[in-house]
Amino acid sequence: MPSEFELIRTYFSRPTPQAVLGPGDDCALLVPSAGCELAISTDMLVAGRHFLPDTDPRQLGWKALAVNLSDLAAMGAKPRWALLAGSLPEACAEWLASFSEGVFACASRYGVDLVGGDTTRGPLNLCFTVLGELPAGEALRRDRALPGDDLWVSGWPGLAALGLAHLQGRTELAEGLAKRCLAALQQPWPRVELGLELRSRRLANAAIDVSDGLLADLGHILERSAVAAEVQVGQLPSRPAGADPAFARQCQLAGGDDYELVFSAAPARRRELAALAAELDLPLWRFGRIVAAADRRLTLLDEDGQELAVDGQGFDHFA
Amino acid sequence: MPSEFELIRTYFSRPTPQAVLGPGDDCALLVPSAGCELAISTDMLVAGRHFLPDTDPRQLGWKALAVNLSDLAAMGAKPRWALLAGSLPEACAEWLASFSEGVFACASRYGVDLVGGDTTRGPLNLCFTVLGELPAGEALRRDRALPGDDLWVSGWPGLAALGLAHLQGRTELAEGLAKRCLAALQQPWPRVELGLELRSRRLANAAIDVSDGLLADLGHILERSAVAAEVQVGQLPSRPAGADPAFARQCQLAGGDDYELVFSAAPARRRELAALAAELDLPLWRFGRIVAAADRRLTLLDEDGQELAVDGQGFDHFA
Repeated sequence: MPSEFELIRTYFSRPTPQAVLGPGDDCALLVPSAGCELAISTDMLVAGRHFLPDTDPRQLGWKALAVNLSDLAAMGAKPRWALLAGSLPEACAEWLASFSEGVFACASRYGVDLVGGDTTRGPLNLCFTVLGELPAGEALRRDRALPGDDLWVSGWPGLAALGLAHLQGRTELAEGLAKRCLAALQQPWPRVELGLELRSRRLANAAIDVSDGLLADLGHILERSAVAAEVQVGQLPSRPAGADPAFARQCQLAGGDDYELVFSAAPARRRELAALAAELDLPLWRFGRIVAAADRRLTLLDEDGQELAVDGQGFDHFA
Repeated sequence: MPSEFELIRTYFSRPTPQAVLGPGDDCALLVPSAGCELAISTDMLVAGRHFLPDTDPRQLGWKALAVNLSDLAAMGAKPRWALLAGSLPEACAEWLASFSEGVFACASRYGVDLVGGDTTRGPLNLCFTVLGELPAGEALRRDRALPGDDLWVSGWPGLAALGLAHLQGRTELAEGLAKRCLAALQQPWPRVELGLELRSRRLANAAIDVSDGLLADLGHILERSAVAAEVQVGQLPSRPAGADPAFARQCQLAGGDDYELVFSAAPARRRELAALAAELDLPLWRFGRIVAAADRRLTLLDEDGQELAVDGQGFDHFA
């Protein structure tokens, strides 16, 4: 069996043009750009909790990096570097080859150098750390939502959760929809370009990425910005044909694993946001507004303005 | 049971004066110092592999951060920031309180801000990412050893491995020695000051920290620098009284978990290195030399210049 060092060299050493020194020493060495802030985030994915243990390794490699890049997208940072620490039950060359293919496919799509990491034996666990840059003082943060802001969400929240439920036999989807939902689950596209444009054009006041569910993550904006929100459920993307409508709505509001961006923006930005959506070929849905209220309450309203009960706000890893 | 978010807030949110934005958003935001390179490293520690599952959580917290800071020390970087991703079998408040005490004791000793992280449920696994800074171009690297360099090691390699063997009933230590070895195992002191001085005074050509064993880690310097080495076993620190001499030698050469620094330096630096050892109150042992040889071979010599067989060169996580 090849040694740990050989495995790492074989599958995880690729050129790192954006680093002074890549894998192979005690640390990687990077030169941050002058005048920029560094945005950094780390996420740990555990087999059986964040992904099914038999997940295709190529898809897993893509997704493990993609969900981290989604955190950079939410701040409006340009992705530059990543490190990967992984614990594996065995050093299976075939699995590692596919997994690394997925990682590097995602890294290359988003312009990221894999500059370091660590590999050990143990229960399957993947921990990426990603670093991006943005001009100092310009980050999209959770704590800057203002009363009167519109609430927006990108893309198609809910599809990934529908895909997972389909895989697990908890719901039945029509064939075309199933394919679309599985793609959303297995190969999410972090909204890096959207985050960069929202930040550089100063279109958004606050932003977060949707990993735990639309309402749960919106809740973090409310909490950190000390505001409340009204959500118009009817203004979210219509529920897809080929799924149980109530279950699809539940997935949309609370499913998680979407990696879309939720953001707040002044109403004066609506035209520019519509133009941006067209430019990026990515729908942006205006689904509510921020209101001043000390209770940080999230109010759900149906098409007739009637209040709906809020439940299943998301996914708390220790709940 | 308190939620994940409450637990993190309670135990892991402390002021982060060195960050623009600490925990609580999608990313932490940092301002790197102008003219500096960023050194970054990540290490994953798995229960049952890198530490005993019943390890005292306070000691574990210290050590998990310390072994990462040791990577910064080996490059001569000044530690500044850390992120912690952890998977825990349960969210036990008492365990988390002690563990976080240990983490912050180490962070505060070495001037590090804990700026972010991730917590989830799963088999016990701790993944720190640490960031430090150093003037551009001045890093201590593995690939810069030169034929003719002396080889040096700091402190007391082997004690931690003796301590572990004692804990596991694989050897018997005299009482005083046992205490010293357990301290080395449970609360290692990364050689940050040594690394900073070696780098800023330009005393060392190449360096690495000893995590997998003295010979194994020296082997990485040889590999990356494309040189060979002669090690004079008799010039290493004498084996401690109160342990089996042969086993103690084995631990010293191949035990691992030392977090000492091994470095190569020009013979012209001997006087300055002796002065530095006195200043830091840390012994530095000159135990061999780098020789030009394409085979990158490590030759062990006893007191009479006789060659010894090399075995047990260290600890390969997938071997």
